[in-house]
Amino acid sequence: MTALVATIPGGVTTPRGFRAAGVSAGIKANGNPDLALLVSDVPAQAAAVFTTNKALAAPVVVSQEHLKRSGGTARAIIVNSGCANACTGDEGMQVARDMAAEAARLVNCPAEQVLVASTGVIGVSLSIAKIRSGLPIAFTALGADQGALAARAIMTTDPFPKESAARISIGGHDATIGGMAKGSGMIEPMMATMLGFVTTDAAVPKALLNRALREAVDETFNAITVDGECSTNDCVMLLANGASGATVDESTYAAFVGGLTAVCRALALGIVRGGEGATKLVTVHVTGGASSEEARKAAKAIANSPLVKTAIHGGDPNWGRLIAVAGRAGVAFELSRAAVVIGSTVLFENGKPHDEAAPEAAEYLKGTELTVSVDLGAGHASSTVWTCDLSAEYVRINADYRT
Amino acid sequence: MTALVATIPGGVTTPRGFRAAGVSAGIKANGNPDLALLVSDVPAQAAAVFTTNKALAAPVVVSQEHLKRSGGTARAIIVNSGCANACTGDEGMQVARDMAAEAARLVNCPAEQVLVASTGVIGVSLSIAKIRSGLPIAFTALGADQGALAARAIMTTDPFPKESAARISIGGHDATIGGMAKGSGMIEPMMATMLGFVTTDAAVPKALLNRALREAVDETFNAITVDGECSTNDCVMLLANGASGATVDESTYAAFVGGLTAVCRALALGIVRGGEGATKLVTVHVTGGASSEEARKAAKAIANSPLVKTAIHGGDPNWGRLIAVAGRAGVAFELSRAAVVIGSTVLFENGKPHDEAAPEAAEYLKGTELTVSVDLGAGHASSTVWTCDLSAEYVRINADYRT
Repeated sequence: MTALVATIPGGVTTPRGFRAAGVSAGIKANGNPDLALLVSDVPAQAAAVFTTNKALAAPVVVSQEHLKRSGGTARAIIVNSGCANACTGDEGMQVARDMAAEAARLVNCPAEQVLVASTGVIGVSLSIAKIRSGLPIAFTALGADQGALAARAIMTTDPFPKESAARISIGGHDATIGGMAKGSGMIEPMMATMLGFVTTDAAVPKALLNRALREAVDETFNAITVDGECSTNDCVMLLANGASGATVDESTYAAFVGGLTAVCRALALGIVRGGEGATKLVTVHVTGGASSEEARKAAKAIANSPLVKTAIHGGDPNWGRLIAVAGRAGVAFELSRAAVVIGSTVLFENGKPHDEAAPEAAEYLKGTELTVSVDLGAGHASSTVWTCDLSAEYVRINADYRT
Repeated sequence: MTALVATIPGGVTTPRGFRAAGVSAGIKANGNPDLALLVSDVPAQAAAVFTTNKALAAPVVVSQEHLKRSGGTARAIIVNSGCANACTGDEGMQVARDMAAEAARLVNCPAEQVLVASTGVIGVSLSIAKIRSGLPIAFTALGADQGALAARAIMTTDPFPKESAARISIGGHDATIGGMAKGSGMIEPMMATMLGFVTTDAAVPKALLNRALREAVDETFNAITVDGECSTNDCVMLLANGASGATVDESTYAAFVGGLTAVCRALALGIVRGGEGATKLVTVHVTGGASSEEARKAAKAIANSPLVKTAIHGGDPNWGRLIAVAGRAGVAFELSRAAVVIGSTVLFENGKPHDEAAPEAAEYLKGTELTVSVDLGAGHASSTVWTCDLSAEYVRINADYRT
């Protein structure tokens, strides 16, 4: 049975029983919205994945603690932009704890049922006073129609907000999944931070929720790359409050993961489209891998290669760069059986170039949504990764911010 | 006893008993020199290290075969620029073999005593006819004063030729080491290729020569990065012909490695200085590693980070980017004991920023030869890596070549 997933307009407040708000707390100097609050009417089952960076930001540490102490339940998530509260020492830890405590007081729940996320400049103190003055305003503004504003409040230099939603059927009940994300806008902060927040009104037991989030993130947020960086603050949080009356079990798990993956994929692709200086969304499809891991590793190496990204930016069908990156990716690779396909144009196979096809590939590369495929010639595993091109604008954004 | 190494002007023909030539064989469309020949008067002990890329170019495969068949002796090296002879199938292999055979005929030695290297466009056939017409001209032009011309003939888009030489004392005898290299000029080819050729008039037994080359390369050519790429053609070749009368043994090995490392370092730093779009030479010094390997891994991650490289390009003392990359480098890292020092200015230590020092660091970053240091706080091992900044010019060079 194929799980049916209907993509619908919406975001974190599309699932029943969730309210959100986005307000200006004065953390960003330009007065843009910088504080988001997301609340479930009832305690929700919560799952999260966090950055693998060892320089963990304070909000990451506090959210991990709270998930542990609460046994994986949460009522609210508080998120600020404009300051990452990272590399801020003990003082920063206290601010993250105080943010959660303040939100918990307003929502009327234990502090450990509040998760915290921050994004913005590393190494700058986050003002608890600003959070304290902004939070009651956010609490008052909470609404089931305020998801879009929350999605704006978590942006740093993202060129547009990222929201998505999907409807699935779970044992005869309709359930909804919605999400918002912010991506790699690094003008203001010192690092890109990727934050994702997903809600669902399905009831999902703890073990299944954790498994589903890991599976969906692996195929979506973990399959995108703008510049190969991984921040101190990255996280994806998922709340399931059961308000739809639908309960996910092993028999309906596939449908839930399908919907969750669709929502996460839309957010992830939005992050890539909105990558710094990006002008093209590039799907990197690797086949012929000795294993899925190796196919993913090669796809990531290609997607992060500055030579590949600049060639695509320039519309140059430089298949040799793709072969050379595949050859150095540290995975099994057999040149005589390898192939490079740009769009649907074969440029290299059986050890031989097809340079006569280069003009056709060059024409294809003028587009803004592109697929490049590399066969490693070493097996039957495949992997897909999404990235963007590398433009001079990326350099300008990241080199010239403070000058 | 400290080994004395005197850096002297010169290149591959500075050691006695070596002659070289650089001529135009018409491989480059613009008529620039594109064929170099390097000959030792007598069979030399030869050692080489080759790219770890699995898409090996034909000349790499042929040189590996020849080294094996000759038991590690060589009379000559033939190098062309303008065409990498990579991804060219069986036909390309034949061209590489024919190049060596033709040079062997002129030099009057077995074919397996000739090593071959190529750099330039991937996937384009190398014309054996052009090599055949150019090679006799090169042979006639061979001279002990032609090293500089050979260094020019191996360039692709390198902004300047790279040569270096050193004099060492081996058991009372003076011996000389000289080298030339080409680096990451990627306008013309589809990939950067790094080629290095080093000669010495010391006699060095096979095992010591191989060990010395590996040691020297590890500290020099393997410690530089322009963009993290590794080409299909990279190689460093070393010939030792004994013409000085000095023989290296275990007791004089350190002196030899010292001289070899000095020559290789000068060439390697030349490659970084001449990196595409580079405006600054950056020394990345990592301390506090749990092991040398981890320190090197972190240093490489920092040196290849587009966020670090753009910040340095913009003169922005973004210590947070250095911390964040160290944290994601996949090595032991302890934030509370980590430190970032730009030049001699401490910007982060003991978990706390020193933002008051930022203006001093920003002033320092206006220079063109910079050192950034990161302490991982996890041990006592260190590593040094050299890189360049990432400029919009890099993107322009690599995106716009064929448009």
